[in-house]
Amino acid sequence: MTVDLNADAGESFGVWKLGQDEELFGLVTSVNLACGFHAGDPLSIRGAVRLARGKGVAVGAHPGFPDRVGFGRRDLAASLEEIYADVLYQMGAVAAFLRAEGSSLHHVKAHGALYNQAARSLPTAQAMAQAIYDFDKTLPMMVLPNTPLEQAALELGLRAVLEGFPERGYRADGHLAERAVPGAIIHDPHQAARRAVAMVVQGQVESLDGPKVKLHCETLCIHGDNPQAPTIARHIAQALRAEGIEVRAF
Amino acid sequence: MTVDLNADAGESFGVWKLGQDEELFGLVTSVNLACGFHAGDPLSIRGAVRLARGKGVAVGAHPGFPDRVGFGRRDLAASLEEIYADVLYQMGAVAAFLRAEGSSLHHVKAHGALYNQAARSLPTAQAMAQAIYDFDKTLPMMVLPNTPLEQAALELGLRAVLEGFPERGYRADGHLAERAVPGAIIHDPHQAARRAVAMVVQGQVESLDGPKVKLHCETLCIHGDNPQAPTIARHIAQALRAEGIEVRAF
Amino acid sequence: MTVDLNADAGESFGVWKLGQDEELFGLVTSVNLACGFHAGDPLSIRGAVRLARGKGVAVGAHPGFPDRVGFGRRDLAASLEEIYADVLYQMGAVAAFLRAEGSSLHHVKAHGALYNQAARSLPTAQAMAQAIYDFDKTLPMMVLPNTPLEQAALELGLRAVLEGFPERGYRADGHLAERAVPGAIIHDPHQAARRAVAMVVQGQVESLDGPKVKLHCETLCIHGDNPQAPTIARHIAQALRAEGIEVRAF
Amino acid sequence: MTVDLNADAGESFGVWKLGQDEELFGLVTSVNLACGFHAGDPLSIRGAVRLARGKGVAVGAHPGFPDRVGFGRRDLAASLEEIYADVLYQMGAVAAFLRAEGSSLHHVKAHGALYNQAARSLPTAQAMAQAIYDFDKTLPMMVLPNTPLEQAALELGLRAVLEGFPERGYRADGHLAERAVPGAIIHDPHQAARRAVAMVVQGQVESLDGPKVKLHCETLCIHGDNPQAPTIARHIAQALRAEGIEVRAF
Repeated sequence: MTVDLNADAGESFGVWKLGQDEELFGLVTSVNLACGFHAGDPLSIRGAVRLARGKGVAVGAHPGFPDRVGFGRRDLAASLEEIYADVLYQMGAVAAFLRAEGSSLHHVKAHGALYNQAARSLPTAQAMAQAIYDFDKTLPMMVLPNTPLEQAALELGLRAVLEGFPERGYRADGHLAERAVPGAIIHDPHQAARRAVAMVVQGQVESLDGPKVKLHCETLCIHGDNPQAPTIARHIAQALRAEGIEVRAF
Repeated sequence: MTVDLNADAGESFGVWKLGQDEELFGLVTSVNLACGFHAGDPLSIRGAVRLARGKGVAVGAHPGFPDRVGFGRRDLAASLEEIYADVLYQMGAVAAFLRAEGSSLHHVKAHGALYNQAARSLPTAQAMAQAIYDFDKTLPMMVLPNTPLEQAALELGLRAVLEGFPERGYRADGHLAERAVPGAIIHDPHQAARRAVAMVVQGQVESLDGPKVKLHCETLCIHGDNPQAPTIARHIAQALRAEGIEVRAF
Repeated sequence: MTVDLNADAGESFGVWKLGQDEELFGLVTSVNLACGFHAGDPLSIRGAVRLARGKGVAVGAHPGFPDRVGFGRRDLAASLEEIYADVLYQMGAVAAFLRAEGSSLHHVKAHGALYNQAARSLPTAQAMAQAIYDFDKTLPMMVLPNTPLEQAALELGLRAVLEGFPERGYRADGHLAERAVPGAIIHDPHQAARRAVAMVVQGQVESLDGPKVKLHCETLCIHGDNPQAPTIARHIAQALRAEGIEVRAF
Repeated sequence: MTVDLNADAGESFGVWKLGQDEELFGLVTSVNLACGFHAGDPLSIRGAVRLARGKGVAVGAHPGFPDRVGFGRRDLAASLEEIYADVLYQMGAVAAFLRAEGSSLHHVKAHGALYNQAARSLPTAQAMAQAIYDFDKTLPMMVLPNTPLEQAALELGLRAVLEGFPERGYRADGHLAERAVPGAIIHDPHQAARRAVAMVVQGQVESLDGPKVKLHCETLCIHGDNPQAPTIARHIAQALRAEGIEVRAF
C-alpha cells in the first residue's frame, strides 16, 4: 500500500515570501508549483524547481486564475476557452524550467477557486482536462474524488489521482466544507494524522455532517501556506508509515 | 539564394487589438509571437498560433520585459537571473500552444528593449541565449549581426539567424538608429524594398551616417505594428522574388 | 426637461487604443473614465481628462474589477471590503488628475461586471456607495433604476442618477437582457433614438418580453466601445432636441 | 531641535505580508505608504492608513515604478510624462483613503529606483515635483539633500524635507553607496543611533570614503523591510531624545 503526500508550493512572489518550501520539500513526496498567475514569478519558479529536484520531490504544475491580489482564491467567471488557454499557458511555463533541468512535469493540480469551480462544474473540469491532455496525455491530474474533476479526467483517459485533505472538514456529499464553517480547518496534527490513516487504510473519513464519506485516496494534500505545515506533514507521514504504508510519489 | 521575412505578431491583449495578423500571416514566412509579458494573453496566443499554423507560417517566441503598460519598450534594469528566467518562462508558455497543436517552436527573438539591451550588452545576451539553449539547444535565435547577440549565440553553439531591418535606418556601426533620429523609420515601401534587396544580394546597406554597413542577412524584419506593414511586406517580397531570391522560413 | 448623455471612455491601455474619445467627447455631455483596473493607465487617464475638459464634458470615475485581461467584464467573487477599497482607490486616482487641472469628479458609475453585480446584490451596491460617500458625499452615482444600486444610494443620501440604455434590450423586470440574448443589443441608430425619447418623455420603454418597463431616466448611456457610438450619439441627441429636451450634464 | 523618523510601510500585497507595521508605527513619527504600483493593494492601503491614524503617525505617499515583481527597485526608462502621471495617480489613490478618514496626505517620498533616479536626474525630479505641486502645492517632498530632488522642490516652491539615512553608508559626494558596497548597510543599532545623532546635531556624517559629508537633516529614514527595524528605531529615538532632540513629524 502506498500514498503520495502533496503540498502547494512555490507561492512566493518577488520580494514576498510565502510557505516553507525548504523544510516542506524534505517531508512531502510531490509539490504543486504556482505558475505565475496567482503566485510565483519566473525567478521563484526556477528556485522552487531546483529545490524540489535537489530534494527528490516530484514536481507538478498548480495553475490558478489570473488574480494575483486575490491569490487565485476568488471565483472568476472565466470562459471555458480562457480556462483552457490559462491552464495550457501555465503548464508550459513551469514545464520549461523542468525541461531546462533535464526533467519534465509529473502532474497537474488546479489551485484554489479554479480547483473548486472544476470540482463542481463539468465544463470547467473538461476545459482544464483538455488543456492537460493536449499538452501531454500521460500527465496525471489530481482530482477530488466523485466530482466533475474526476469525471473529466476519465472521459479523456487522463490518469485521475484521487486526492484527500486530512486537514480539511468534509461535507457528507464528499465536497470540502467552506473554510468559514466551524471544523472546516483541522489544526491538530494528531487529528490530521488519524484522518490521513483512515482515508488511506479504510477509504473513508468522518464528515462534519456525521456520516462517513467514502474516499479512495492516492495522494494527501498538506496545505503549504499553513505555518504548521511541516509539523503536520511529519505527523501524517509517521502515522502512515506506522501502519505499513509506503509514502512516495505516484 | 533564400531569405526569411519575419514579423512581430500576436501583440493584442484582452479586448485590445494590435497589428494585422490575419493579413500579414499570408505575406511573411515567420512570426514572432508576444508571450504575455509585454503583450499577448493565453487566449490571444492560442489564436495567433492557430492562425499561423493555418497559414503555414513558422512560429517563434518573442519574449520581452515584464512591462505591459510600456509594451516592453522601456529599458529595465533586470538582473541576469531575471532575464534568464523571464525568457525561459515565456518560451515555455508559447511552446505549450504549439505542442497542443502537434508542433514546436521554430525560433526565438527578443522584443523591444530586451532585444536592444542584448544587442549592446554581452551578459544580457548570454543570459538570454542560455535560456534558449537550456530549453532546446537546436532553437535558432534571431540576432542583430556583429553584436553581443550574435556572439552569445555562437559561444553556445546556438544557430544565430542574422536579421536585417529594411524599414529602419542604421548607424555606421551597424546598430539601428534611435527611433527619434530623422531617417530612423523608413515609410516608403519602394525604398524599403530596395534596401531589402541590397541587404540580401549585396550584403550591405547605406547607413544614416553615409558609409555602407556590411550585413549578411538571413531574415528581414517587417514591423507588424505599422499600419502599412502588409503593403511593405508585399513590396519587399516582390522585389526579392524579382531578383530570383526565394522567400521562405529558414 | 433635460437629460444627460453619458459614455464610458478612457478605455485605452498603454499602446492599445480603444474607443473614439476624440469624436465622442463632442457629442455626449458626461464621460465615465476607466481608472486603471480594467482599462486605462495614468498617462491615458491624464489624456482623457484633458480632452474632456477641453470639450466641456463632465468627468466621472468608472471603477471596475481588477481584471485587465477580462476588461472587468467577468464576475469576480470579491469581498465587500475589497469592493469598497477598490472603488475608493480608483476614484482617488482619477480625481487626482482632475484636481491637477483645478477641477473635481462629477460622478461615479461602476463598470461592467461590478455594475451588474451591484445592480443585483444590495451588499455589493452598499459597499460601493459607501466608498463614494466616504470620498465625497455630494458625488452622484449613476444607477440602474429600481435595483439595489438605487437603493444603496438612497440609503446613504447619495444622489442616485437614474440611467437608461437606449441601445440595450430590457427584460420585463427592468434589468438589462444578457448580451447573448437576441435583441439585447440594438444596432439601428434610429431605433435607439426612438427608445431614448420614449425613456425620457414617457418614462417607459418596451421590454424584450413584451410589456413596457417604467423607467425615469436622467442620463442615457452610449456604449463607447461600439464603433457606431458617435453616429448613435448624434441620432439620439438630435431626436431628443427635436422633442424640446435639453441635453446637458446633470 | 526636532527631527522626524520616517519609515516605508504598507509594503504587503494580497496574501503576502512584508514589514512590521504594527510594531513600527508606534516608534516612528511618519510613514510612507506604498501606493499599489511596487507594493500595496487597496485593501492593504486601507489597513495601513487606519493603523497609522490609530497610532497618531503622519501618513505620506510612497510612489514607485510600476514594477511589482521587482518591488520598484529596478531602474526603468519611463518617460517624464509617465513619471508625472504615475506619481499623480499613486498620490491620488492613497489620498482617497485618508480623505475617507477625514484626513489628508502629509507628505510624499519616492520609492526605490524612482527615488534614486530622481536623486541623480533633474528632469525626473522635476516631473515628480510637478505632480506633487499640481496635486497640492503645500505637500512636502522628502529629498536627499544636495541633489536634483532638492533642487526640483525648491524651483517650484515645494517644501523640501531633507532626509538622512543613519543605516546607510554615504559616498563623499553625499549620495548613498550602492547596497552591494561593503559598509553600505549598517546593521548595528548603536552605530545607527550614533550616526543619527551626528546627522541631526552636527549636520554631518562620516562617508565610506573618509571625509565627512555635510547633511542638514529634518527626517531620518528607518528601513521598514529590515527585520531589525523596530530595534533600530527604538535605539535611534532614545539616542536623539538623550541629546534633547524632540522626535516628531515635521
